[in-house]
Amino acid sequence: MSPTCVCRGGSLGGIWRLGEAGMDGLFTRHRHLVEAALAAQATRGFWAPFSEIPSGKIYGETAKEDGLAAFGALRDKPFILPNHPETGRLGGEVSPFGPALGITYPVAPIDALVTAAQSSAPQWAALTPAQRTGLCVEMVLRLNALSFTMAHAVTHTTGQAFAMAFQAGGPHAQDRALEAIVTAYADMTRTPDSAIWTKPQGKAAPIVLEKHWRIIPRGIGLVIGCQTFPTWNTYPGLFASLVTGNPVIVKPHPAAILPLALTVSVIRDVLAEFRLPRDLVLLAADQTGHEITKTLVQHPAISIIDYTGSNAFGTWVKNHAPQAQIYTEEAGVNTMTLAATNDFAGMCANIAFSLSLYSGQMCTAPQTLFIPVDGIDTDQGHKSFDEVCRALATAIDDLLSDPARAAGVCGAIANPATLERLQLLRELWLGEGGTVVRESATLASGRTATPLLLAASADHTALYQDEWFGPIAFLVSVGDADSGIARAAHLARSKGAITAALYDLDEQRINRAIDAFGLAGVNLSINLTGSIYVNQSAAFSDYHVTGANPAGNASLTDTAFVANRYRVAMWRRPTGV
Amino acid sequence: MSPTCVCRGGSLGGIWRLGEAGMDGLFTRHRHLVEAALAAQATRGFWAPFSEIPSGKIYGETAKEDGLAAFGALRDKPFILPNHPETGRLGGEVSPFGPALGITYPVAPIDALVTAAQSSAPQWAALTPAQRTGLCVEMVLRLNALSFTMAHAVTHTTGQAFAMAFQAGGPHAQDRALEAIVTAYADMTRTPDSAIWTKPQGKAAPIVLEKHWRIIPRGIGLVIGCQTFPTWNTYPGLFASLVTGNPVIVKPHPAAILPLALTVSVIRDVLAEFRLPRDLVLLAADQTGHEITKTLVQHPAISIIDYTGSNAFGTWVKNHAPQAQIYTEEAGVNTMTLAATNDFAGMCANIAFSLSLYSGQMCTAPQTLFIPVDGIDTDQGHKSFDEVCRALATAIDDLLSDPARAAGVCGAIANPATLERLQLLRELWLGEGGTVVRESATLASGRTATPLLLAASADHTALYQDEWFGPIAFLVSVGDADSGIARAAHLARSKGAITAALYDLDEQRINRAIDAFGLAGVNLSINLTGSIYVNQSAAFSDYHVTGANPAGNASLTDTAFVANRYRVAMWRRPTGV
Repeated sequence: MSPTCVCRGGSLGGIWRLGEAGMDGLFTRHRHLVEAALAAQATRGFWAPFSEIPSGKIYGETAKEDGLAAFGALRDKPFILPNHPETGRLGGEVSPFGPALGITYPVAPIDALVTAAQSSAPQWAALTPAQRTGLCVEMVLRLNALSFTMAHAVTHTTGQAFAMAFQAGGPHAQDRALEAIVTAYADMTRTPDSAIWTKPQGKAAPIVLEKHWRIIPRGIGLVIGCQTFPTWNTYPGLFASLVTGNPVIVKPHPAAILPLALTVSVIRDVLAEFRLPRDLVLLAADQTGHEITKTLVQHPAISIIDYTGSNAFGTWVKNHAPQAQIYTEEAGVNTMTLAATNDFAGMCANIAFSLSLYSGQMCTAPQTLFIPVDGIDTDQGHKSFDEVCRALATAIDDLLSDPARAAGVCGAIANPATLERLQLLRELWLGEGGTVVRESATLASGRTATPLLLAASADHTALYQDEWFGPIAFLVSVGDADSGIARAAHLARSKGAITAALYDLDEQRINRAIDAFGLAGVNLSINLTGSIYVNQSAAFSDYHVTGANPAGNASLTDTAFVANRYRVAMWRRPTGV
Repeated sequence: MSPTCVCRGGSLGGIWRLGEAGMDGLFTRHRHLVEAALAAQATRGFWAPFSEIPSGKIYGETAKEDGLAAFGALRDKPFILPNHPETGRLGGEVSPFGPALGITYPVAPIDALVTAAQSSAPQWAALTPAQRTGLCVEMVLRLNALSFTMAHAVTHTTGQAFAMAFQAGGPHAQDRALEAIVTAYADMTRTPDSAIWTKPQGKAAPIVLEKHWRIIPRGIGLVIGCQTFPTWNTYPGLFASLVTGNPVIVKPHPAAILPLALTVSVIRDVLAEFRLPRDLVLLAADQTGHEITKTLVQHPAISIIDYTGSNAFGTWVKNHAPQAQIYTEEAGVNTMTLAATNDFAGMCANIAFSLSLYSGQMCTAPQTLFIPVDGIDTDQGHKSFDEVCRALATAIDDLLSDPARAAGVCGAIANPATLERLQLLRELWLGEGGTVVRESATLASGRTATPLLLAASADHTALYQDEWFGPIAFLVSVGDADSGIARAAHLARSKGAITAALYDLDEQRINRAIDAFGLAGVNLSINLTGSIYVNQSAAFSDYHVTGANPAGNASLTDTAFVANRYRVAMWRRPTGV
């Protein structure tokens, strides 16, 4: 589709406001997008309906200024969600780049949110899958038009640099939303609305029944967001639950409420325009130290939970919500194994970027790099373990030598605890006589930290086998490349992993690695150089998380992610009776 | 497809034994059946690949005699499963029609079964979805050829009359097996094996990655069978786990081992023919009083559990296997609501059959019938509550007046406890001054009982709101039809229900009932007369159980039933690098 078609802003024709006929019309209007998405998903080549380029040519000449102004207008004010349940206000977001946002959000007792969701549910459940699909696609298109505003909101809650906040918080999150919507649409419409069932009876008249099927939503969905990717990690669960007929309560991380408040606002506006209950999607904001997540998770009316966050809390959620279908993206220890390369400079530059991007605060960022103790063969000759370590440190230094580029790559540190952990680890490691290959440093503005590289041996399992979230990487010497692969696969199986990377030239060993990482349920990237990185996961092509190791039980977006959010009920009767 | 094609017995061409080429050939050979099944599933009209008619014209001139002889040859002997782990033997099956079967089955420690399954797994996981699909379809075709033998095995373990044992134990179970196989095949092949991903980079050269996906099986599947439908309720989980790449341990009910031992034998033979490890499918037989189910369920290596049985044990399973993905068909209280009919005789005859068939021992059999206290309008004039009760009793008497037909309809009682419960209930009810509308009676041969009908009022909730498995039905007077519908829907929601039926002529009330039962997640049959019954659930058209109420968390066979039995892992690399 053309970019101008996607980014048409709020210019809706009047017909789309006219109740059910409008809803059907909406699906007709968006059908080409649904079909293109399904075609892309089937072939899994590159397809991106929402442009990742933050350009006025694509998003409208004034989009950039409008977004900045809109973000500014939200600051230091109550965030208004018309008709949202509200018995009070809270909000304590502080930008990782400095200022407090000064925004407050409506709060209401959990039972009030549940009641509001339940009373809204029947009208939404009564729509057809196509009608709900049309409405959900419309919501995503509205979010796309808001991408510049969203980019600022994401920047000042996550610490992502603007370009990344635009991409990951805007179009890439919208891609994942659309992916979830069409996956659910395809699965819901596998069952026809009705059929005539004619069973032959030999010479007697056949038995003829008419049968009718309908989608029965599972119940209220709860989506628990994280701070670092408040939209990207939330949209799939939100839209998968919504399109399958369930009301959704959105529980943002207390430090990253604004991106989801904006999202909820856009969705509620679309619902209201189509005379549907706004309270189908609700905001459940809370404050650090007074979190409501555990109470929400255990509420008997919560039937579906989508959770993104730590393994520790993910395990708690899985053990405390027997009433709910639970989808998690947790965390793991992502590894790289360096065996050989025919582009040493390209490899080092690529890894440097992967380690530096958003200061390692991506669930896809590598942390533990296995390097043969005797070094590796490269196009620049054999490189010793120490030479590889130094080259990686130098590549990071080079990447971050220009302050503006460094700021654009690293962004800021979302959570102060990440910095504290980094300092603690460094001191512990030095105290044990460990080697620091590259010191972390701060950048010009905001709460920042460039990657800390520590050299370790294979014996230091207590160090490198745990997740150290943030700009921390371990360069671990191992006996040989096969040993590195084995350790990396073992780590994926035992601790979880979302990504794995391998640099190698031995095709037989590459095949062994493919088998090992496949069985460990982790997606593997081989010999990435240039501007494609292990951290990247593209909707409609890459599944994000496999669900086959402790890094999460769900995958974005396979059928399993959508198929259990609803059930099918039938009625049948003899024809004409 | 033609019946002769399906029922070709064991006459395999030599090529099908030649390793992987043979496996691909097998899929090619069965592709038309897979495609026809998927087409049927999409349209949900009548389609039955395996003939339900126990006729020599279809199954081979000597099939009937051969089946009887084969069953006879199994009696009073050890059941041989070549190369199956075996450290001992057990078996205590006694036919509900009288004799002990005298068959013993191999037993081995659970850890030995798990080890055998694990060591067999990699070879099976390495096959393509198409290869596994071809093999699984082949297994089902072999089972089809064995239908007469199976019918005797099912008769003498479940108490089903021969015709029903043939249908439900043979072709209908095979239909459900094929349905599960093709549903899984369709979902697995939604993801291509590979793709070229080309991302434009403006004026620069595009980024080109090759990507490859593979199916990662979840782990060992455990299938827990029930006594009454040992094959029908077991095949979907067995074949869904198997075709998605998992080894399967089959745990039969201790009173109905033979049908599943035969099944395991057929499957293992096919695996061996194709030089695959037989131990991909294992039998875990046990004996009443020394059950091994709890130990199996809690084994850390069990990753998938398919369970058919009581709610009490189902709840236990769901609370004690956090390591496993669990699919259950449990039980509920199936209702009928009688509001009005334009075919009173047809209605009564139809209900009489539904109550009598296999003496009410079907999970789809009605138990609690709501009838307005003021009676109902019919084509024979208004009928009072008492008149309706008497007419239902008379219809049962008429149906069972011929001894041969009675035996063919009712079969025998699988479990002696069912008879004890029936007697206990009758005495309790008479003790409370309750009304017996129809007494249960025995038939000529076997452990038998015809339906016991008790009249109750809406206040007797403690009586009719619980499941009383077997030939027991409650005729409950309610204020009016809407009240009956409301009570029936409430029962489905709170206690679970697999079926609901309604007889009514008021289209507005019918629509209200459709909504009420739909929201309660129960399939509804309206105004059934003639030879189609609420008990019946046809593969490729009817979903069995919705998963949306306490009668079970899974549905035969939707995408959710298959999609979480495997995951997808990817590897990607720049093309040509």
